[in-house]
Amino acid sequence: MKKNYLLTPGPTPLPPEVCEALSRPIIHHRTPQFQTVLKEVQESLKAAFQTKNDVFILTSSGTGAMESAVVNLLSWGDKALVIQGGKFGERWTELCQAYGVKPIVIDVEWGKALDPQILKDYLAKEPAIKAVFSTLCETSTGVAFDIKGFAQVTKETGAVLVVDAISGLGAIDLQMDAWGVDVVVSGSQKGFMLPPGLAFISVSKKAWKLVEESKCPKYYFDLKSAKKACDKTDTPFTPAIGIVIALNEALKMMKAEGFENIFARHKKLADATRAAMPALGLSLFSTDAASDAVTAVRVPAGIDGEKLVKTMRDEYGVTMAGGQGEMKGKLFRVAHMGYISEFDIILGIACLEKVLKKMGHAFELGAGVKAAQEVLLK
Amino acid sequence: MKKNYLLTPGPTPLPPEVCEALSRPIIHHRTPQFQTVLKEVQESLKAAFQTKNDVFILTSSGTGAMESAVVNLLSWGDKALVIQGGKFGERWTELCQAYGVKPIVIDVEWGKALDPQILKDYLAKEPAIKAVFSTLCETSTGVAFDIKGFAQVTKETGAVLVVDAISGLGAIDLQMDAWGVDVVVSGSQKGFMLPPGLAFISVSKKAWKLVEESKCPKYYFDLKSAKKACDKTDTPFTPAIGIVIALNEALKMMKAEGFENIFARHKKLADATRAAMPALGLSLFSTDAASDAVTAVRVPAGIDGEKLVKTMRDEYGVTMAGGQGEMKGKLFRVAHMGYISEFDIILGIACLEKVLKKMGHAFELGAGVKAAQEVLLK
Repeated sequence: MKKNYLLTPGPTPLPPEVCEALSRPIIHHRTPQFQTVLKEVQESLKAAFQTKNDVFILTSSGTGAMESAVVNLLSWGDKALVIQGGKFGERWTELCQAYGVKPIVIDVEWGKALDPQILKDYLAKEPAIKAVFSTLCETSTGVAFDIKGFAQVTKETGAVLVVDAISGLGAIDLQMDAWGVDVVVSGSQKGFMLPPGLAFISVSKKAWKLVEESKCPKYYFDLKSAKKACDKTDTPFTPAIGIVIALNEALKMMKAEGFENIFARHKKLADATRAAMPALGLSLFSTDAASDAVTAVRVPAGIDGEKLVKTMRDEYGVTMAGGQGEMKGKLFRVAHMGYISEFDIILGIACLEKVLKKMGHAFELGAGVKAAQEVLLK
Repeated sequence: MKKNYLLTPGPTPLPPEVCEALSRPIIHHRTPQFQTVLKEVQESLKAAFQTKNDVFILTSSGTGAMESAVVNLLSWGDKALVIQGGKFGERWTELCQAYGVKPIVIDVEWGKALDPQILKDYLAKEPAIKAVFSTLCETSTGVAFDIKGFAQVTKETGAVLVVDAISGLGAIDLQMDAWGVDVVVSGSQKGFMLPPGLAFISVSKKAWKLVEESKCPKYYFDLKSAKKACDKTDTPFTPAIGIVIALNEALKMMKAEGFENIFARHKKLADATRAAMPALGLSLFSTDAASDAVTAVRVPAGIDGEKLVKTMRDEYGVTMAGGQGEMKGKLFRVAHMGYISEFDIILGIACLEKVLKKMGHAFELGAGVKAAQEVLLK
């Protein structure tokens, strides 16, 4: 017997309620039956995004919603600022380049945060910048950027703040309206406890002016079509009906738990994970801005990082993520995002201890679990 | 009690095997476990597309794969020919326009076919045309275009033939390689018996040369990234994992039934449907080129078409589709595509009879079912 446990930062485990919804007979999307669901989903998504703006549902990976942000806000030759501190920050840069937008890149060292003052200086120096692209939780490094601080800067300027919150939304706090974030992008397979296949995007009034002016070519990801359909409780193209129905169930669960409680749960799980690692002689990758959605840990000297992750997964069924891009083999990442309880974290740490011990890393067996338990008992 | 029956041309009903696969716990997409599935799917899709070319899997509605065709084959200012005989033909025109491609439109009367000779004449007159966009089964009219005939024309020219086979592939015959079709686009929610959320695209060697030259901006739908990932049994972005796993189950079922048998079943169901309608005093919308995937029927004089479809759906749980675009209220459409048996068609006709009778249309009760039964008994 090998039982599987998913501790990866997307996809994240599915609640049984979601699995059940996904297995239902399909219904047609242009029926009152589906419209009832879509209406509920549209309202609940607003609560999850902490906004009064529409949240548009796209059938795509999260990257599709990122592309949607770029092509709907900007035009060829426009200047944009990218806060790039990991693989997903780089995606903003690539997207800008693909559409002839000129990205000015703030290259943040992987694992580090960015002081909003630096953003302020860049914007002061380059008043032509129309959009600032950032990341809520940089999945590749486990860093949570200071979105509130960035928004305080951008709202005093003509530039809009666009946040890739694919990783993190519904797990950690992002107050779109209250903080003044202009565009928030997310996806289904992380905090929302769903399979991948849906992406979301919400646009402030300030940013909608850019949508009106944008000349980037677009069709499938055109937000004007999305808005027109959304106003009639519809989608411009056949949506991933099954995942939308499951989203309704997931959002009901999130509402029942309460967003405050969800954020507190994620913080506790992250604190427990962060306490466990030093107890095993491991060091955290990010010390000044660790996200509560995923923890990145340095692979200790003498241990093969890829083998560590592979052994946990293939021998014991516990799937964590390895390092991405320049951190391949040097990191492993434990997610505590979505449908994850404290005991999922405990079993993940226990598995990590077992494999590290077998691989010859020196530490006291049980020390990681104990350190996590101490946090969880508080 | 109201039991639901779906006879719409997308989404189509899900087999229990597919529902079961959709309800499974999610797995991570960058694992040997998922790669095994993806490898099988990649091979089986080639069989379904009747090609040796790669079939790329996109996470989007079918329209996403249509956009992918346009942006990967062409550049701003290029000329393309669009065979436009319904709502989905119009989508090719809109997509071209969105990306600055100049569409020359062959405006085919809705419900009619197009003689390949006319295509030949257009191409002779405009040798600059790089791509011809067509539709296998025009869902809005129930017409199947002569793709084999079109390919005979295009393969003698420099232009590539691009076919929207979203509706029809896996239900009716389309021999990509044997006929010389250059690009075939499809989607999950029709012949493939899956929920919407995946789209597919396959590109011939002749068309891949255009991919190399294309200057349209693109990122999410970039086929070079798709190919690079596909070569490593991967996808460039997180795919709709659950639907890919369900696709594997659906493709196994299709393989077990055999494509020849699948096409024969669809033809029989279509023949039965087409026999039933005149027996009820109704006339078929397309007489010279009716598709075996969906049958469009004219709403008889004196009957409110929208009410007819609504009553079948809301009172009896039988969902057919109404007319789209310019045919709104004037047509209803019965699909016999995907997971549909002969008795699904019978019950659909029985429901149609019941509602037509109640709405005052004159015909002999049971005549439609009888005519269909006669065909099915052969």
